[in-house]
Amino acid sequence: MKAVVLTDIGAFPVVRDMPEPRPLRGQVVVSLQAAALNHRDLWIVQGKYPGIKVGTILGSDGAGLIDDRAVLINPSLGWGDDPRVQGTDYEILGMPRHGTFAEYVAIESSQVVDMPSHLSFEQGAALPLAGLTAWRALFTKGQPQYNDRILISGIGGGVALMACQFALAAGYEVWVTSGHDSKIARARQLGVAGGVNYRQADWHKELKARAGLFDLIIDSAGGSSFGLLAQLVAPAGRIVIYGGTLGAIEGLSPQTLFWRQATILGTTMGTQEEFAKMIAFVAEHRLVPVIDSVWPLAEADGAFAKMQAGQQFGKIVLKP
Amino acid sequence: MKAVVLTDIGAFPVVRDMPEPRPLRGQVVVSLQAAALNHRDLWIVQGKYPGIKVGTILGSDGAGLIDDRAVLINPSLGWGDDPRVQGTDYEILGMPRHGTFAEYVAIESSQVVDMPSHLSFEQGAALPLAGLTAWRALFTKGQPQYNDRILISGIGGGVALMACQFALAAGYEVWVTSGHDSKIARARQLGVAGGVNYRQADWHKELKARAGLFDLIIDSAGGSSFGLLAQLVAPAGRIVIYGGTLGAIEGLSPQTLFWRQATILGTTMGTQEEFAKMIAFVAEHRLVPVIDSVWPLAEADGAFAKMQAGQQFGKIVLKP
Repeated sequence: MKAVVLTDIGAFPVVRDMPEPRPLRGQVVVSLQAAALNHRDLWIVQGKYPGIKVGTILGSDGAGLIDDRAVLINPSLGWGDDPRVQGTDYEILGMPRHGTFAEYVAIESSQVVDMPSHLSFEQGAALPLAGLTAWRALFTKGQPQYNDRILISGIGGGVALMACQFALAAGYEVWVTSGHDSKIARARQLGVAGGVNYRQADWHKELKARAGLFDLIIDSAGGSSFGLLAQLVAPAGRIVIYGGTLGAIEGLSPQTLFWRQATILGTTMGTQEEFAKMIAFVAEHRLVPVIDSVWPLAEADGAFAKMQAGQQFGKIVLKP
Repeated sequence: MKAVVLTDIGAFPVVRDMPEPRPLRGQVVVSLQAAALNHRDLWIVQGKYPGIKVGTILGSDGAGLIDDRAVLINPSLGWGDDPRVQGTDYEILGMPRHGTFAEYVAIESSQVVDMPSHLSFEQGAALPLAGLTAWRALFTKGQPQYNDRILISGIGGGVALMACQFALAAGYEVWVTSGHDSKIARARQLGVAGGVNYRQADWHKELKARAGLFDLIIDSAGGSSFGLLAQLVAPAGRIVIYGGTLGAIEGLSPQTLFWRQATILGTTMGTQEEFAKMIAFVAEHRLVPVIDSVWPLAEADGAFAKMQAGQQFGKIVLKP
């Protein structure tokens, strides 16, 4: 079968022929109809991930068929018994185990769920990793309450967009930041109240003047802008962080944190139960993940280049 | 009556004659037998506090008599209805309202509780603000669970010591840091498992090698050492921060936070309910606050100089 394989750390993966997977006991084989990229795939390609194994088929997100059953794959493997944190056996599909950028993947039957019927395979493939991460970040960690105002930074990324769609569907007032005015404009079309471009000076002051303070902030950047984000947290507010694209957090005021009784919550991925709740929510609200572009599997390098450029709005999908 | 009054911002307060307080409706007058300093008093003297009013009697902590009833004063005033965070009317006794560094103070009767009978007035006066802050930090925010390992930074300060005593009384394994070996030695006498001096290079690595990771870390410093503290947090661990003596937090890894599902919780002071629980815990376990030194009210400047030097281990007490 054709598959997208990491052959050299530091270079885009290549399409090559790989043997079809044989299911182990308890596994099923999914005939993949669509897969989706995540930032994780780019970190792996760039060598910025622990335990990278050359020769692995990449890809965490996939939608496909088991006979004529349409399914989504939960890429969160071996979480363990503690809902607070993944255990030591935890891994994410697509490194070191062969992933979804292929015609077939073998996966434990407990990791597949029926795909919500309103979704295409491309839309379904865009959902699992980003949806799961966003669900845990927004609901399990963020614990939004009635009338809370929510800020989501870096809108355009898959997790940020899913968190935005979930929060809007749940009835919250949502604001966003981005480095691109065009992405803020597209987020407004989704229903957000407004946004500011973080490339402009004093963006945090403008946002505070326009929106006030935020009960819940969801961030994936960290860096020195995190210190500015924290100035926007309301009393008893929460800041959930699921990424660190800008590196170490700098300039974070302890006084803001303790005087406002604020909380910062780190989160990544989620449990089987959270995955099931997320899928049910998507089905109930008929949510459709935002797709940036769809690429043939043979053009995976183009899809990776698109993600690396950071210009996408929504998920980048591969079609085997 | 004699009282310690802030007359110039930037200078130590002075002892002067002030009129005895007249109780408003709902208030009682406490004949103060002992009072205690907090870092807050020093911040006020240094002008590092919002809403400073010259002419105010300082002091948040006091123990005394109402007729022959021995009482402690809860200095946490007007918290409001939300246990998560103090409301906009919140204030702390001793600025802008006249405080406890005096012979008498007028206070709402709902703010006084019976002093646990095993305590002297000096010991009782050492308890309220530090005990309340430590209680909320350790139990309400930190939510320690069975077998958790706890790290308390900057041992020697009043809140850190009370948190240490509470955690030991509740049966947890406690480790400490300090900039003084002598303070670590004294903490070992209280029952802590061990500690490291944060002035030595790679102190965090030594602590990790000796103790492992910590389920709960309690810090009042912030600064760049917070980034090192965070490297010591266990999976699903919590870092509670109630002060910022070293300024803005720097070098805090988002990856550590999100991959370990760690949480940072800001906290200050506490509710009436938390105060009552803290007092009951102190009475039940017959805990005795650690006192560094006792000073006559007339020598308040000596007490302030001692606190400013940062050499104390335990509370600095004033006797009217």
